Amino acid sequence: MSQPHEPLFDTLTVVGVGLLGGSVALAAKQRNIARHVIGVGRNAKRLREAQAAGIVDEFETDLRAAAARSQLLIFALPVDCIVASVRDAAVGCRSGTMLTDVGSTKSQIARELSSALPVGVTFIGSHPLAGSEKAGWEHARGDLFDGRVCVVTPVESSPSEEISRLTEFWSALGLTMMSMTPEAHDHAVAQTSHVPHVVASALARTLADENRSLAASGFADTTRIAAGDSDVWIPILLQNADEVIRGVDAFADQVAAFREALIRRDVSALAELWARGQEIREQCGARGSRAPE
Amino acid sequence: MSQPHEPLFDTLTVVGVGLLGGSVALAAKQRNIARHVIGVGRNAKRLREAQAAGIVDEFETDLRAAAARSQLLIFALPVDCIVASVRDAAVGCRSGTMLTDVGSTKSQIARELSSALPVGVTFIGSHPLAGSEKAGWEHARGDLFDGRVCVVTPVESSPSEEISRLTEFWSALGLTMMSMTPEAHDHAVAQTSHVPHVVASALARTLADENRSLAASGFADTTRIAAGDSDVWIPILLQNADEVIRGVDAFADQVAAFREALIRRDVSALAELWARGQEIREQCGARGSRAPE
Repeated sequence: MSQPHEPLFDTLTVVGVGLLGGSVALAAKQRNIARHVIGVGRNAKRLREAQAAGIVDEFETDLRAAAARSQLLIFALPVDCIVASVRDAAVGCRSGTMLTDVGSTKSQIARELSSALPVGVTFIGSHPLAGSEKAGWEHARGDLFDGRVCVVTPVESSPSEEISRLTEFWSALGLTMMSMTPEAHDHAVAQTSHVPHVVASALARTLADENRSLAASGFADTTRIAAGDSDVWIPILLQNADEVIRGVDAFADQVAAFREALIRRDVSALAELWARGQEIREQCGARGSRAPE
Repeated sequence: MSQPHEPLFDTLTVVGVGLLGGSVALAAKQRNIARHVIGVGRNAKRLREAQAAGIVDEFETDLRAAAARSQLLIFALPVDCIVASVRDAAVGCRSGTMLTDVGSTKSQIARELSSALPVGVTFIGSHPLAGSEKAGWEHARGDLFDGRVCVVTPVESSPSEEISRLTEFWSALGLTMMSMTPEAHDHAVAQTSHVPHVVASALARTLADENRSLAASGFADTTRIAAGDSDVWIPILLQNADEVIRGVDAFADQVAAFREALIRRDVSALAELWARGQEIREQCGARGSRAPE
């Protein structure tokens, strides 16, 4: 968390200047981790506004041109856009350039990028566990990553010095680092994030119009992540479909156990199930819990 | 919301001085709605502390003694304790006394209290939709009810002037009033609150120990209400079991629809389901949503 005297990277390019990309850019500038930050995207008007707002130092709509000048590129795009964009950028990269992403799925991307990158150009997947249901760089924050966890998912062929360099970068942004295989990552986040999104969305869909005025803070919290951008979430759920389906089934078993106990009016079974959920929830700590209202 | 010049009630008794009871007491004192507020409970030490903290003006462990001096009694107890406590208090009440509760279920309580109260003593159920996963008067707040909805559930025999008096009381606490039958209330809150509690608890139970460090704010929000007190929530779910089971089944259908679309990799079906959940979530407004983190 200490400010390095010399920037870790001279030029950093963020591809996709939205909430996450914008926050990486801001955090890297504020912490002096990169001397110069380029934002890449398709919409020059939006990028110019982001530059004017101080999110990036410079913007570029030509990905390869930016790649040629960068030591590190971060792809903050929907997961179904990462592979093609990384391949495109890699063509323009000098040897020694590191590419990573911030996507919520890792296996399919790692598989598709395991070959065919130019020699000396390395892609290693990253997943900083931070975000919001809000989209756009207007919501970017330099402290978005403070105290959060970042998973890096190297594969067998990943050079160890490049893994270290990537780990150093995310650590400097304030993240606590974990390393997992892409497959272990996808299995775990199905449980911690993807299934909860399926659940929140399903719960939101059960609300009848006439009951809307009775939906208070409990309903609002439980369904908050159902407001996530579908362009982000449908590709995530599709890329991790098998793990998500298994996770949904495990969840459905838990719901069914409670339902059965309720049918039997089995107070001790209900209490035991409730206590287990309560205990696990409490061990998750205060993250995300709000002041009473 | 305006401060009445004269208190609406001379003496108000709150039975059960926890988060909700304590907040009713505080709000009634702060808004000059009752001249004098008595807190009733079993634990004299805790009540004395609540009095010292300014939550109540006076405390009493003898319910009937407090009831004899009160024009309004609010029962802020777990739903399975309300009926017996109301019957006990009613014996000591003078004619013209109003009794109400803050419970999250209404049908069973209304049925059991529909007869056998002394002449001139009225019970009408109330449900102010406010609360927290936190328990205890230490978390009580005089503004807990500001802008929230309160449902009153009169029955056919409820005198209209008593309904008005009760509505005036809750309105003065800052609540927006709705009136429903006890049955319509229980059907609606199964959907908006009870099923979400079952879902949050089931979701919390799916989290494996080794994945805990990957449970970020989305998981925390979606499971927040699983931390609710089991002494409060098991009785609620039991009293409303039939509606909760129907609600759980409707929810399970929504989960299954998404799961099927995921198995088929049916992008347009997934997008349609997601969009519907997103739309409903967004219409619930900002209640409960947090700043990005």
